[in-house]
Amino acid sequence: MSDATRIHCPKLRKKVMTAEAAAALITAGSNVGMSGFTGAGYPKAVPGALAERIRQHNAQEGNKPFRINVWTGASTAPELDGTLAEVDGIEMRLPFQSDPICRDRINTGKMDYVDLHLSEVSQNAWSGFLGKMDIALIEVAGIREDGSLIPSSSLGNNKTWIEQADKVILEVNSQQNAKLEGMHDVYYGTAMPPNRKPIMMTHPADRIGEAYLRCPAEKVIAVVETNSMDRNSAFKAPDAVSIKIAEHILEFFQKEIEIGRLPKNLLPIQSGVGNIANAVLEGLNDGPFKNLTAFTEVIQDGMLKMLKSGTLEVASSTAFSLSPEGLKEFNENIDLYREKIILRPQDISNHPELARRLGIIAMNGLIEVDIYGNVNSTHIMGTRMMNGIGGSGDFARNGYLSIFVTPSIAKDGAISSIVPMVSHVDHTEHDVKIIVTEYGLADLRGKSPRKRALEIINNCAHPDYREQLMDYFERACNSGGGMHTPHLLGEALSWHQRYEETGHMKPKN
Amino acid sequence: MSDATRIHCPKLRKKVMTAEAAAALITAGSNVGMSGFTGAGYPKAVPGALAERIRQHNAQEGNKPFRINVWTGASTAPELDGTLAEVDGIEMRLPFQSDPICRDRINTGKMDYVDLHLSEVSQNAWSGFLGKMDIALIEVAGIREDGSLIPSSSLGNNKTWIEQADKVILEVNSQQNAKLEGMHDVYYGTAMPPNRKPIMMTHPADRIGEAYLRCPAEKVIAVVETNSMDRNSAFKAPDAVSIKIAEHILEFFQKEIEIGRLPKNLLPIQSGVGNIANAVLEGLNDGPFKNLTAFTEVIQDGMLKMLKSGTLEVASSTAFSLSPEGLKEFNENIDLYREKIILRPQDISNHPELARRLGIIAMNGLIEVDIYGNVNSTHIMGTRMMNGIGGSGDFARNGYLSIFVTPSIAKDGAISSIVPMVSHVDHTEHDVKIIVTEYGLADLRGKSPRKRALEIINNCAHPDYREQLMDYFERACNSGGGMHTPHLLGEALSWHQRYEETGHMKPKN
Repeated sequence: MSDATRIHCPKLRKKVMTAEAAAALITAGSNVGMSGFTGAGYPKAVPGALAERIRQHNAQEGNKPFRINVWTGASTAPELDGTLAEVDGIEMRLPFQSDPICRDRINTGKMDYVDLHLSEVSQNAWSGFLGKMDIALIEVAGIREDGSLIPSSSLGNNKTWIEQADKVILEVNSQQNAKLEGMHDVYYGTAMPPNRKPIMMTHPADRIGEAYLRCPAEKVIAVVETNSMDRNSAFKAPDAVSIKIAEHILEFFQKEIEIGRLPKNLLPIQSGVGNIANAVLEGLNDGPFKNLTAFTEVIQDGMLKMLKSGTLEVASSTAFSLSPEGLKEFNENIDLYREKIILRPQDISNHPELARRLGIIAMNGLIEVDIYGNVNSTHIMGTRMMNGIGGSGDFARNGYLSIFVTPSIAKDGAISSIVPMVSHVDHTEHDVKIIVTEYGLADLRGKSPRKRALEIINNCAHPDYREQLMDYFERACNSGGGMHTPHLLGEALSWHQRYEETGHMKPKN
Repeated sequence: MSDATRIHCPKLRKKVMTAEAAAALITAGSNVGMSGFTGAGYPKAVPGALAERIRQHNAQEGNKPFRINVWTGASTAPELDGTLAEVDGIEMRLPFQSDPICRDRINTGKMDYVDLHLSEVSQNAWSGFLGKMDIALIEVAGIREDGSLIPSSSLGNNKTWIEQADKVILEVNSQQNAKLEGMHDVYYGTAMPPNRKPIMMTHPADRIGEAYLRCPAEKVIAVVETNSMDRNSAFKAPDAVSIKIAEHILEFFQKEIEIGRLPKNLLPIQSGVGNIANAVLEGLNDGPFKNLTAFTEVIQDGMLKMLKSGTLEVASSTAFSLSPEGLKEFNENIDLYREKIILRPQDISNHPELARRLGIIAMNGLIEVDIYGNVNSTHIMGTRMMNGIGGSGDFARNGYLSIFVTPSIAKDGAISSIVPMVSHVDHTEHDVKIIVTEYGLADLRGKSPRKRALEIINNCAHPDYREQLMDYFERACNSGGGMHTPHLLGEALSWHQRYEETGHMKPKN
């Protein structure tokens, strides 16, 4: 499996070893900065070897558990989060995860999880708030003769991890397309305050950095060769609900353009990951808008289609998140895509300065939204972590328009996505501009809370829950309590409570 | 009272009229953009004349109420918000208020209130989300020969209002110190996306704009001469609680400097308004830190003292909020202060790009915080609006450190400022770094929710409530529910409910 052509630096070729040998260099209690963002570009061999080492250790010395703290870009895959969580090898995890085993350990109190805005992770690491990073474990697509690194299918926090760690382990994955070389733009102008300078970018296509990651050869303690695919989860074909949501968004864009509130080619779009997001992108691809741009954190299949058709001129991102078919399409036509895609570190792809300046249209999913427009993106019934806030806050807080999309119900109608009061808030009423379900779109801009409630209930709620929501709202308005944001405190979270107790948000008849 | 020297433009001198005549030019249903920020630089004569006109109108034609929509920079004073609210003259108010009559009307459902991040108001107005601005009513300190305006004691959204409105009414207040001239820095480089450029500021002392407001003379339909003081609310002398809070913050800064996580002269400080904030500033003035800078939205008495002693080198702001003694000090020593103070539009003083780049240390008050670090800055018991979010979100979201301060209890102990779950969220767990009460400081950085809970309960809660909070937390942890953010949904808001029912958050024995 060795692919000599991927490691061109003689010094680093000498450090090639097995995943097991490399895993032996990671000590218990370490803070380990790993590559990986939305299932792309994560290390594929060393985490598994480390997990096996931990399993053996725990079998022998279970009273002194071997655990590490895992810092990444965002979500990874079973070969990293899953395998380490399964052997109880993770003490603390940040800043985002989506792994079922991890999630279970977080929600049963067996693993600590720190859920951070993805733009702020590197700043937090640099500031020292998170402690000292001991070791970086980074997948790359190749090593150049001078020791500089050709990044892989995600950039994430790799630049920061390599700079912050004393020791670096590299995985060189020959499965990654060699033509990724040149697609990255690693900005080396960041600094800690008071030494920060303006980031001189005014268009998603601007290049402001370098194509390679710098890495002092003396930091590298191991190089492991791999030949494995990224996670490449499949997308579902857009269903009726997703298609309706996409239609409402397209209609909204059309109207905003007519009124003169959006340029004809919109503004740079950001799109979260998932089936609905993909459906919106497919809708945009079939829609009337041309010469679009994207300034986002993830490129998924829908965006490839838009780039290929020419609807989208350029996409700036920090990672891919492609289905197996998407990956095939990407690899077969990489000469086209490499001219139109720029991969950046996540502190640049998600930077508040750039989200504000470029005027991002942020489109993200949610778990639940309340009648006043507060959005919960992370917690199931207020207590259980789903994945994390990811970049949604980065884009929604500072962008031009924040659009949150969701099916109006979940679990076959047992859950209404619109509730009297959300059980957790990730995006406040001040930051949420537009809500869209398959039933319609609520435009919350410039509206007071009570007007927002009518807009959300009437336009977005599922008909099965509309009456129940309006009943709550009206009784709250008539309760004699405060009328700015009317609530019945004793009932505000009762829908969630009922769901936990009966499995349904509706009272039994 | 006419002070001819304040109106040097012949064209505009011809438009001088009484406040009553000017008020007659404002039509019912208008969107009126007014100057004013934290009780400084608001129009002082025309709102009162308009209120009288509305009172007379309503006495005669009460079935067709005369109301306007009032957009400002931030809070104003009884002569504006109070007088118009009293005659039911405000249909909708944005983006911040602190007037008791306004507040009452908002909370009894008689007035619409749209609570916005102060940095985003001008962007929202430019985008057209808020509707068309009909008329601007702006206090200035003088009019120059070419018709350009010497701004008053606040800049707020004045630049935007003058640009957006078809018609402008100016109040020229000869009470404002003539030496304000030259202290302002009005940045004319803003634009809507996709045409935005980097804001070339890297230090709070940087000047990037002009000293005057541009205003086409043909837009001006009236000029009214006034001679009235700003609101100039008195500050209380720091009490024991405020002094303890200040001590904890100073100790924290000292430690952060020792560890190397803050420069010796800190980073630009932002400080909310009020007695505690003022106490912290007094503490900083007496403390060991030198060569500080401020990048904030309000300059209050404590900051003048710091500027005078030399502890603070420069203060960038959008407004003053001085006590009568503070104003006297300012006027007597304006030659000193005018070299060290820069007043900017609020979309620059609060800009996310600048808050992030400069690395602001944001210090703001709160109404309540929960055990997981979610902060409520706006709502009393979840339903009643206090003032508004103001700039706290602008600075806390994008700055380097967000510090929220509060006495541990309110209403003589009937209310705990630390609760199981906040009844409204303005700053999410992702954005809140440090909580300080008179009992101590909770450092939430890099901690998972359950670790934050212990930190907040043990370090910050009032002893009378500590056991009750710990009891809730432990029962939530043992409830068998989700362990990421343990809650008892049926009890989470019960403290608020109990307060509403019994006047106390503690159960009766």
